[in-house]
Amino acid sequence: MAETQESILLKIKEQGDLVRKLKSAKESSEKIKEEVAKLLSLKAQLVPEDAAPQKFTLKTAKGTRDYNPQQMSIRNGVLDKIIAVFKRHGAECIDTPVFELKDVLTGKYGEDSKLIYDLKDQGGEILSLRYDLTVPLARYLAMNKINNLKRYHIAKVYRRDNPAMTRGRYREFYQCDFDIAGQYDPMVPDAECLKVVTEILDALDIGTYVLKVNHRRLLDGMFEACGVPADKFRSTCSTVDKLDKSPWEEVRTEMINEKGVSPDAADRIGEYVRLNGGVDLADKLLKDEKLSKTKAAVEGLQGIKLLLEYCELFGIKDKILFDLSLARGLDYYTGVIYEAVLTQPIKIGNEDQTVGSIAGGGRYDNLVGMFDSKNKQVPCVGVSIGVERVFSVLEAKLAAGDISVRTSDVDVYVASAQKNFLEERMKICAELWNAGIKTEQSYKKNPKMLTQLQHCEENGIPLAVVLGESELKRGVVKVRNITTRQEDEVARDNLVEELKTRIAALSVKGVNGTA
Amino acid sequence: MAETQESILLKIKEQGDLVRKLKSAKESSEKIKEEVAKLLSLKAQLVPEDAAPQKFTLKTAKGTRDYNPQQMSIRNGVLDKIIAVFKRHGAECIDTPVFELKDVLTGKYGEDSKLIYDLKDQGGEILSLRYDLTVPLARYLAMNKINNLKRYHIAKVYRRDNPAMTRGRYREFYQCDFDIAGQYDPMVPDAECLKVVTEILDALDIGTYVLKVNHRRLLDGMFEACGVPADKFRSTCSTVDKLDKSPWEEVRTEMINEKGVSPDAADRIGEYVRLNGGVDLADKLLKDEKLSKTKAAVEGLQGIKLLLEYCELFGIKDKILFDLSLARGLDYYTGVIYEAVLTQPIKIGNEDQTVGSIAGGGRYDNLVGMFDSKNKQVPCVGVSIGVERVFSVLEAKLAAGDISVRTSDVDVYVASAQKNFLEERMKICAELWNAGIKTEQSYKKNPKMLTQLQHCEENGIPLAVVLGESELKRGVVKVRNITTRQEDEVARDNLVEELKTRIAALSVKGVNGTA
Repeated sequence: MAETQESILLKIKEQGDLVRKLKSAKESSEKIKEEVAKLLSLKAQLVPEDAAPQKFTLKTAKGTRDYNPQQMSIRNGVLDKIIAVFKRHGAECIDTPVFELKDVLTGKYGEDSKLIYDLKDQGGEILSLRYDLTVPLARYLAMNKINNLKRYHIAKVYRRDNPAMTRGRYREFYQCDFDIAGQYDPMVPDAECLKVVTEILDALDIGTYVLKVNHRRLLDGMFEACGVPADKFRSTCSTVDKLDKSPWEEVRTEMINEKGVSPDAADRIGEYVRLNGGVDLADKLLKDEKLSKTKAAVEGLQGIKLLLEYCELFGIKDKILFDLSLARGLDYYTGVIYEAVLTQPIKIGNEDQTVGSIAGGGRYDNLVGMFDSKNKQVPCVGVSIGVERVFSVLEAKLAAGDISVRTSDVDVYVASAQKNFLEERMKICAELWNAGIKTEQSYKKNPKMLTQLQHCEENGIPLAVVLGESELKRGVVKVRNITTRQEDEVARDNLVEELKTRIAALSVKGVNGTA
Repeated sequence: MAETQESILLKIKEQGDLVRKLKSAKESSEKIKEEVAKLLSLKAQLVPEDAAPQKFTLKTAKGTRDYNPQQMSIRNGVLDKIIAVFKRHGAECIDTPVFELKDVLTGKYGEDSKLIYDLKDQGGEILSLRYDLTVPLARYLAMNKINNLKRYHIAKVYRRDNPAMTRGRYREFYQCDFDIAGQYDPMVPDAECLKVVTEILDALDIGTYVLKVNHRRLLDGMFEACGVPADKFRSTCSTVDKLDKSPWEEVRTEMINEKGVSPDAADRIGEYVRLNGGVDLADKLLKDEKLSKTKAAVEGLQGIKLLLEYCELFGIKDKILFDLSLARGLDYYTGVIYEAVLTQPIKIGNEDQTVGSIAGGGRYDNLVGMFDSKNKQVPCVGVSIGVERVFSVLEAKLAAGDISVRTSDVDVYVASAQKNFLEERMKICAELWNAGIKTEQSYKKNPKMLTQLQHCEENGIPLAVVLGESELKRGVVKVRNITTRQEDEVARDNLVEELKTRIAALSVKGVNGTA
């Protein structure tokens, strides 16, 4: 495609930056001249503003994308597997509008609130696009005074973040959430969320993983025990959250310089956050001199112990890691938090790609109350599956030729070798459609035979009905197996039954399946 | 639920209108006093603006709604049936972002452009929410230089219209589109769109219907023949479009007073738009003195004739009505247009509800070219299914008790009659989940037996596994049929197999199905 106005503008900006850099670095005037010339030539490519008629750039909004049929095929395949797990656990499905009153979202996301998309004030209500599915769920529960719900919700959410689209980070992206709301016994629904994550990751078969768990009460207790003032717990917590991407030294510096944590306190936190393990670690920490004196830490550790016990009953203990460095960014968590991480890079073509976090969630007991005029709480716990990362891994595999997908399910193509068979093709198509057979034909009156057969091959259509004058006179048509190229004559009157038999046989053989 | 601030404000407005009406009608002062008193009492219910702390009203944005699990169950059932038809015709699936660059939408919708939702300018691109799925499709085709595509797209679109939510008219609503793009022979894809509509309406089984067809070229020719100036074709056309809701006299007045059509021309149009029929009518009009001299009208009539011929081959002729009053609102249609209308009111409880238009579409050959810098055209024809109307009919039937739906698919509930069986329940649940059996249990440590069985009954769960100490000691558990209340002992080791057998038997009997 020709370069767009926008891509030229971007290059001009980059080139301008380079020139300024060279100048400030006092590079040779020759070098600078060379780069300035490039800059001027870029500027010359710009369509002058008064040039008429100025067409706008044809693109999707920044950070968003279309899904083409292959990508949709991958997306629907992934979502179907996930929905099957949600349904296996008895989850109901709800949906909420794509925008909410701005007030609903205000004050729920901490530092990230600046990423919310607002709608223009066109008279009437002030609206924003949803930022996640959790706050709308809490609004839904409070508004409808619902005390118990096990629901899944799969929908797009919106964040004005810096997109990194090659790594599956968009401004419009899918969330895929499972939550259990209700006043229940400790850790019973929480453990089921972890079980759901393992079933989904096993079903997606995307690689080995570990499910890290921690507890917000333990983190609070740990901060308290290390001497962090209570009003700095949340901001310290969001700094700890960066440990999955940054080394401890950087996190420590941010704590001290930006969050106002004392160096001593930071060092004490550093000792704890390098710990991870299982029940043994929880037991050991319950005896830890500082933590054992802190009510919050003891509560958190007892919660973790119970959770690990339930995970053992669910047969998933070997996939769980109690990890004190896990913090999670969002403000609203109050109890257990967890995150699933792929432990090995994924092979795509000849390259390894690191995926990292693929699911996460936790307990948020106070969010629904924020929407209730009497502050009535509905405790909740849930998990969100990072499907965009799964999509981008599978799309990369598709691009590398590691997998293939079909974009339509058509079983039969109605073709003709001779001219003037459109009417007969139409009659047969109607007959097959009415019998529930997935059927296509050419929309041309007199398509070429080769073109018709190529369409079958390109689209993985396994069978073709081939019409010919001499056959029709004898009351038969040919049925062609596209893969084997074998053609058989079939009685016209028996065509539907014969095709149904052949389709059933093909689908047993798996010829019909998508990767 | 308590009345919201907004619903009170609405009532105040209505009551105010009533009072003004009574006053201007010079009603008795007693009557007026009575209504004024009501108005004042409504105003007293308003929370004063300075009352602190003012909580915002808990609601969804105007014209939008949540879908609860029952509504989702209906929605997914309807969409599944429609998708099955789309796939039967070999359609691929695509998706586009919920917002587009505002320029993409500008100038595509005529008078309705004022209903577009804009996003706030937060720096960066100027964006709007999509108004339909057709313009994004055209943008997608042009941007990716795609010349052929048969695709379906099911997604929400946004219009700042006056909502009438009880009749299924929302500001956020589903569109459900099937389109065929490509340079093909006349009316072949167009006829398939009509076939698709009939298959969908038959599958939804929502009542008898007629598929009205007309042709934009015929309308243009008719306007020309009646003496309407060419620059008034589009606005006259959108007035004719109102004939499904308003009598001819009103439409005539609007044409003359607002659109500047001469009374003579309007009367001539009036003669034509009352005509409807089949091939005979098309033949008759081809001999019509005025129309036969107009190139556009002849082209339109020949198109209609061919379309009707193909519809006969597809076996749907008896469902098609060639109707000269059909105009369709949108600017972008260039050829055949059609609309499916239910011919009988739908019985809901004891009341009849008129639904009217339930699907519509047509040919738009010039839309893709508007996005191409060289104005390269990709001819398109498509249809949009009015699923929101179907949803609201089925939701009304549900509310009236005419149909019932299940909101989860759970087959087995793991219950215990005694205390301290949580661990055993968890182990059995994990076993059943791992075997792919849809299973639930209580999240309480010691739930009451009655509560557990009630949950099964309320949610249509057919089977319960009931744990008891004496049975477990003997290596058995009880399996209870919730409907018949029959309980059988089943060997613990054989539980998964036994349950699978019973579930398969139930689903054959259809006990498991939703309405």
